[in-house]
Amino acid sequence: MSNLKKDKRPLEIPKPTFERLKKYLALLLQEESEYISSEGIAEKLNITPEQVRKDFTYINIKGKPKVGYHIPPLINELSELFGIGVMDNIIIVGAGNLGSALAKYAGFKKIGVRVVAIFDNDPVKIGKFVGELSVLPFSEENLKRVIKRFKVKIGVICVTEESAQEVANILVRNGIKALWNFAPVTLKVPPGIVLENQDITTGVLTIKHLLEKK
Amino acid sequence: MSNLKKDKRPLEIPKPTFERLKKYLALLLQEESEYISSEGIAEKLNITPEQVRKDFTYINIKGKPKVGYHIPPLINELSELFGIGVMDNIIIVGAGNLGSALAKYAGFKKIGVRVVAIFDNDPVKIGKFVGELSVLPFSEENLKRVIKRFKVKIGVICVTEESAQEVANILVRNGIKALWNFAPVTLKVPPGIVLENQDITTGVLTIKHLLEKK
Repeated sequence: MSNLKKDKRPLEIPKPTFERLKKYLALLLQEESEYISSEGIAEKLNITPEQVRKDFTYINIKGKPKVGYHIPPLINELSELFGIGVMDNIIIVGAGNLGSALAKYAGFKKIGVRVVAIFDNDPVKIGKFVGELSVLPFSEENLKRVIKRFKVKIGVICVTEESAQEVANILVRNGIKALWNFAPVTLKVPPGIVLENQDITTGVLTIKHLLEKK
Repeated sequence: MSNLKKDKRPLEIPKPTFERLKKYLALLLQEESEYISSEGIAEKLNITPEQVRKDFTYINIKGKPKVGYHIPPLINELSELFGIGVMDNIIIVGAGNLGSALAKYAGFKKIGVRVVAIFDNDPVKIGKFVGELSVLPFSEENLKRVIKRFKVKIGVICVTEESAQEVANILVRNGIKALWNFAPVTLKVPPGIVLENQDITTGVLTIKHLLEKK
């Protein structure tokens, strides 16, 4: 993509559009055909084709009449938006079921993420294998070494809500720039640190709401 | 809440507002104080107080000047919106790490969800305990019995993307009304069936985007 084109991209994408763009990308990565129409995307995601077309104006992608969008450049544009071309090494703290599920998650590679270490302080878990990774003791020494060696910026918090803030503090103190938090608790982080809370139960609230309305 | 008040509630809440209302509820359930200001909510969720106040107009909640919002009625209103007062029994298919994490998730009770069974077809997993539940063989006979006995409407799909569509078909065929899908695949469901895809990796895309911009 040329710089000229880059400059024409609106600087701020509205949050709802941004969230939908993620969904489009997930969908496109699953597609096997070469073209897809806005109707095709819309139907699968339960939104309107107009919405799809409007969202794609933010990434300078235009469809061709009767053919639709050419999928490879669309994936490229979205990948660039989400920084997927850059592979980010991440570390996971907490080798319980959720941490283990993430450590073994096959889809990370497609979105430019690689899990390089998983930590726990439970002696029963330390040394056991989760996928291809052996669980490391959660010590500042180990953390420092891994963060430095793999240039890790992103730390994933998969511990209990009681331990999450302490883990966050330790990660930030040792150089982590972004926290991806799965613990159901609101964390405090210093200015400049990116914090993204991932509540894995939000979907069921939508379901309950929709079932109630029926 | 009186019917009069209920009738004044706007029928359709915009999707972004709906998503934020979920976050407010999650936050409020963690609060220990009795009142909270829109500024207090906004700061913790990284949005503006104006946004918070605007969102609350959809659920007919008004704050008091200088005191803020009274938390208990606010939780009640949001609980009603999400059907939390009604306890929904759910079943999980797939007793891998993710299914197991969900089966043991402590926060479900607070949002009106109870896991009544977990199924798998792996002989190694069947009969083992996940929290308080013993993993059941994923047979239509077992499914039918559990769905009928516990009046289950919601089925959670925690299997591989290869098996997800087949599992969805079997669940719907046996009376499940809503699917909560954690497999990274787009499912096809008959009209009238609620489908909610939960992509647990979306958070890291936001993080990558924000780190790229720095």
